[in-house]
Amino acid sequence: MSERIYTAGLVVIGDEILSGRTHDKNIAQVASWLQVQNIRLAEVRVVPDVVERIVEAVNALREAYDYLFTTGGIGPTHDDITVDAVAEALGVAVVVHPTARAILEKYYADKGGLNEGRLRMARVPEGAELIPNRMSGAPGIKIGNLHLMAGVPHITAGMLDALTGTLEGGAPLLSETVGGFIPESEVAILLRDTEKAFENCQIGSYPFFREGKVGSNFVIRSTDEAALKACMAQLCEGLDAAGFAFTHGGI
Amino acid sequence: MSERIYTAGLVVIGDEILSGRTHDKNIAQVASWLQVQNIRLAEVRVVPDVVERIVEAVNALREAYDYLFTTGGIGPTHDDITVDAVAEALGVAVVVHPTARAILEKYYADKGGLNEGRLRMARVPEGAELIPNRMSGAPGIKIGNLHLMAGVPHITAGMLDALTGTLEGGAPLLSETVGGFIPESEVAILLRDTEKAFENCQIGSYPFFREGKVGSNFVIRSTDEAALKACMAQLCEGLDAAGFAFTHGGI
Repeated sequence: MSERIYTAGLVVIGDEILSGRTHDKNIAQVASWLQVQNIRLAEVRVVPDVVERIVEAVNALREAYDYLFTTGGIGPTHDDITVDAVAEALGVAVVVHPTARAILEKYYADKGGLNEGRLRMARVPEGAELIPNRMSGAPGIKIGNLHLMAGVPHITAGMLDALTGTLEGGAPLLSETVGGFIPESEVAILLRDTEKAFENCQIGSYPFFREGKVGSNFVIRSTDEAALKACMAQLCEGLDAAGFAFTHGGI
Repeated sequence: MSERIYTAGLVVIGDEILSGRTHDKNIAQVASWLQVQNIRLAEVRVVPDVVERIVEAVNALREAYDYLFTTGGIGPTHDDITVDAVAEALGVAVVVHPTARAILEKYYADKGGLNEGRLRMARVPEGAELIPNRMSGAPGIKIGNLHLMAGVPHITAGMLDALTGTLEGGAPLLSETVGGFIPESEVAILLRDTEKAFENCQIGSYPFFREGKVGSNFVIRSTDEAALKACMAQLCEGLDAAGFAFTHGGI
């Protein structure tokens, strides 16, 4: 098992997210999926449907992280410009992918056939492979460390599913949770000191309001299982000493 | 009315968003609120609880846009480092704000009083003002064009409400919507050509699946009311000529 920590960036493309019209679901979906792949989502940028802005974000994140994912802008309409922007970022041409074209011809055979708009969805940056789309016709696109996926969340889910297990990942990030009706402000020092005592562990504190009461879940994350266990034991001891009831696994 | 278009950036701070544990609600909330203020959300970055990463994002976005908002990392625990990072980005000290301290003393008077963790929430970058928090004790923070808000969405909602009407905005972005059970791939050329015919208008296409059918809403946006009306008229004429039924206001 590699000790290296693999990282990813995500660029969410679309005016509809920035206008508040559409509530993004892809950040959470891609983040959760990456956790399972043992890859850490390190940054997300949401940018408008403007070529230069997409190029800038794609170039910044594809160089900073091991993998880059994009969602949105690969549909049939004039505002779907992700392929053009990514090709520009990579300095390659846009070409029609013959397999993508064949997939779309088959998919639209009984829906009026291909037209100019639909054919847009067969365009890829030169050198790209396809990511299967199990939900509708148009495939996703993989080129180098970039993965271009749909904006519609259930289509993206299918593309992620197709990618599962295909990316080289690193040390799995382990986590353990403990929670209770504990106001985080009463244990802030305990959390800080416990984290400080274990170099390889991070403790996140996630407050909530439920049943009219304040509570928190505390999540310890580490790639080192022994450190994680020891850190959790020390945290639980501290919570116990402070007189708080808690539940392993969180509440 | 100013012709200038005011813009904003948003930095969402928190490991819990990047891990997929928490589903972000602040992007949509801040985006919708900014629309009403006539300010365009131009970019969002989601970054981890790491000082250098927050500093980098804050500096990039506060210089690129008229306003910058942050959500997350202003609570009582050790992983709440937004104030420190913003002070570093601005090159100012962190100080205890006397009014914030008084608010917290009052809020926690019958909850065990102030402790080191709770007192953290009175810390601000030197020179900052407070943003009222109508939901719980700790206030938000305003300094220059920066607005630091909570991560918990209903607390952020209260802070946005307190800021309503206080920011200098620009020309209102107008929008009109038309929609129907129209596959966007069948009208992609019409959308592109209509947008091209009206320089000041943008057309967004938002497909959906409902009642087992494919449909789309088309949103035209412009700061020019006459252009918006003319663009909408031309789009409707085109949809009509193509034999599609549609509804003003969208479906």
